[in-house]
Amino acid sequence: MSIDITREFLDNLEEEILAGKKENYQEFINDSHPADIAEIVDKIDEEAAEILFRSLENELGAEVLMEIDEDLRAKFLEGYNGQEIASELIENLDSDDAADLINELPSDQRREVLDNIEDEQQALDIARLLIYPEGTAGSLMGTELIKVYDTWRVLQCVKEMRKQAEEIERVHAIYVIDANNKLLGTLSLKKLLTTSTKTPISEVYSSKVQYVEINTEAEEVANYMQKYDLVVVPVVDPIGHLVGRITIDDVVDFIRDEAKEDYNLASGLTDEVEEDDTILAITRARLPWLLIGLFGGLLAASVIGRYEVDIEIIPQMAFFIPLIAAMGGNVGVQSSAIIVQGLANQSLSGGTVTRLMKELGVATVNASILAAIVIGSSLFLGYSMALALTVAVALFAVIIVAALIGTFVPLILNKYKIDPALATGPFITTLNDIIGLFLYFQIGRLILA
Amino acid sequence: MSIDITREFLDNLEEEILAGKKENYQEFINDSHPADIAEIVDKIDEEAAEILFRSLENELGAEVLMEIDEDLRAKFLEGYNGQEIASELIENLDSDDAADLINELPSDQRREVLDNIEDEQQALDIARLLIYPEGTAGSLMGTELIKVYDTWRVLQCVKEMRKQAEEIERVHAIYVIDANNKLLGTLSLKKLLTTSTKTPISEVYSSKVQYVEINTEAEEVANYMQKYDLVVVPVVDPIGHLVGRITIDDVVDFIRDEAKEDYNLASGLTDEVEEDDTILAITRARLPWLLIGLFGGLLAASVIGRYEVDIEIIPQMAFFIPLIAAMGGNVGVQSSAIIVQGLANQSLSGGTVTRLMKELGVATVNASILAAIVIGSSLFLGYSMALALTVAVALFAVIIVAALIGTFVPLILNKYKIDPALATGPFITTLNDIIGLFLYFQIGRLILA
Repeated sequence: MSIDITREFLDNLEEEILAGKKENYQEFINDSHPADIAEIVDKIDEEAAEILFRSLENELGAEVLMEIDEDLRAKFLEGYNGQEIASELIENLDSDDAADLINELPSDQRREVLDNIEDEQQALDIARLLIYPEGTAGSLMGTELIKVYDTWRVLQCVKEMRKQAEEIERVHAIYVIDANNKLLGTLSLKKLLTTSTKTPISEVYSSKVQYVEINTEAEEVANYMQKYDLVVVPVVDPIGHLVGRITIDDVVDFIRDEAKEDYNLASGLTDEVEEDDTILAITRARLPWLLIGLFGGLLAASVIGRYEVDIEIIPQMAFFIPLIAAMGGNVGVQSSAIIVQGLANQSLSGGTVTRLMKELGVATVNASILAAIVIGSSLFLGYSMALALTVAVALFAVIIVAALIGTFVPLILNKYKIDPALATGPFITTLNDIIGLFLYFQIGRLILA
Repeated sequence: MSIDITREFLDNLEEEILAGKKENYQEFINDSHPADIAEIVDKIDEEAAEILFRSLENELGAEVLMEIDEDLRAKFLEGYNGQEIASELIENLDSDDAADLINELPSDQRREVLDNIEDEQQALDIARLLIYPEGTAGSLMGTELIKVYDTWRVLQCVKEMRKQAEEIERVHAIYVIDANNKLLGTLSLKKLLTTSTKTPISEVYSSKVQYVEINTEAEEVANYMQKYDLVVVPVVDPIGHLVGRITIDDVVDFIRDEAKEDYNLASGLTDEVEEDDTILAITRARLPWLLIGLFGGLLAASVIGRYEVDIEIIPQMAFFIPLIAAMGGNVGVQSSAIIVQGLANQSLSGGTVTRLMKELGVATVNASILAAIVIGSSLFLGYSMALALTVAVALFAVIIVAALIGTFVPLILNKYKIDPALATGPFITTLNDIIGLFLYFQIGRLILA
């Protein structure tokens, strides 16, 4: 399958690199896949990594560069001037990778790099890609594709394809365009293989073509490609001109990143933190969320503080504080997680009212069952009927309120273009804690007083 | 791009279907993509959906069937006998979809369907696919692929490919094998297009081929294809024979499902619940987690109960219960989320000890900062120094313990082949709540007594 990158292997390699024994690893490295070399570069000592990277031929080096960790890439790039970036790196990259790379450069260097790209068409393509806002189809696409005119015959098509294929690494699809570069359809390889060379393209291409528009949101592109099982999708401008293509590998990366981001937000981690980051980086990712929890806890303390006299009279009321707080948090997260996923997959059906009624229905069923259990358990554990009733009523109320908050908060965040996944993290738990405790003590005052 | 499936559109269509006005929608439906028809079938009334589904031609019907909701598919299949399933559906499906479909049938019907498949090779291929355990490369792969012998020349290769392509919907790659069906390499379309027809294949194919073994875990296949940006990967048996291929679309589905499962577990939802499920189904997915929270809460109540006398003396101790509980939960989830992701991406580096030390490092930094803040805030809010100190020391202890639990629990679960993502849900929060409260009151007794 692939090489097994063990710690021992890395230690040996590191030693050889630092000892300057290039002859011991060069052949092996040149035979390796760029993704494997990138993994090695990411995992060895930075000094050795830079030596190894510098020893790569331009084409391989450019590919490896695009696969390594962003921070390390920035560091390696410091050693290049604009002219070198253009001739040694950019010229060996696909347009989409090239645009990504340029986007990561300091702004004063970008222009210099673009000016130094020899192939003017390539420079133009990249410059155009730089314009599209992040998170749109335009920012994901590349311009390398094979296109043929509908007026050609199969033979001419094969000849032209040969020419175009010289410059393209992988042939994913053949697009058919008219004289104005309007996308008309696709020509399947199967058709090309099984049709006489004299047949006009116009007779064999399929006009049922799936495409996305350049301004389509990346998330929508991902859903679209997944829905139709597409490996590559052409991108058109608003008037139907073929401007590029998006391949599934970029979309897969996007899907994973999105899933990770949602997961991180739900777990109280700022995005982009990795298990192998430094202690300081990890702390930075976690501390803000813990601060929310801390201030929430202090707020909860002052809410409870208003009921100090009640606790003095019935200390047992304090026993159920964690239960009420935890249940509010749990229900809130459940409700918002469903909404967050529905928003991400664009699978939310029905209006807000329908959704709310359903959420209330689920909450009522759960709340009734849990309240009944809590009354039974509390009595069994020897608490008074009044306290048991207080906890049960408060639990019921907390679950209903938490469900409502859990449903509304992500919808509201989404409306204001804030990532709704924020709602599933410590934020909603803390909010529900406080409201839940307030309800609990207020109900306690009514029942127990 | 694609049709816009609005509620209004669905209502109209539903009406026409139920009124038997086939002529009004047939042409439109036959022109639609199977994925769009499937979406329509999923979203309209079940009676209308069945009529619509029955009106589809066999090939289109089979494709739509594989895209609709599993429950609905099972319902539609009840109307077919084994012979019909074989001739109308299976024969129109790729081997991997066919195997999936047969796997969903009642076990007594499976054999009947297999016996009724006319093409013996196809029946054999499918029967073989049924053997591979779920979650392995074998269960994801299909057997449709294009293969050529290394002894052929380009011309013969093109001719044979034409024949093979007739039966294959999409040509992803061309595999080169030896006389024993051993995978030797791949032939790029580019090479095929740009080489003279007389060249022997052995001279132009690339032997640097990426492949997976049939027993490789699905998760590993997903990571592998993502790492190397593969659109399709060949599958070999343990001695290197080419047995199938896995396409990226199946892997994308797998990645999404896994991400969803992790997210659901972290949010306290049993897997497989959708926003549009019934109230009962949603309740079933949520209630078990809430019960964990409830019993955790009751347990917490009895832990606090042991310190009733302390609360009677210093009721203010109760104020900080939510703070301590919430922080333990938050830190625990943060720690375990990092481990769960590392396990999923197989990116956990270093040994358990290194990881633990780092986790402890992060926890110590966070705990120190938060403890300092809590002392300051408590004093500012007018609590006694002794209480402020108690809360701060307890908070420090809780964070350290929660980080350890958060790190260990997913590692232990993983070791025993239980999904580590379980650790990020209500389970770990509840455990940390209880331990945290015990520590808090115990420390309180030491400092405040």
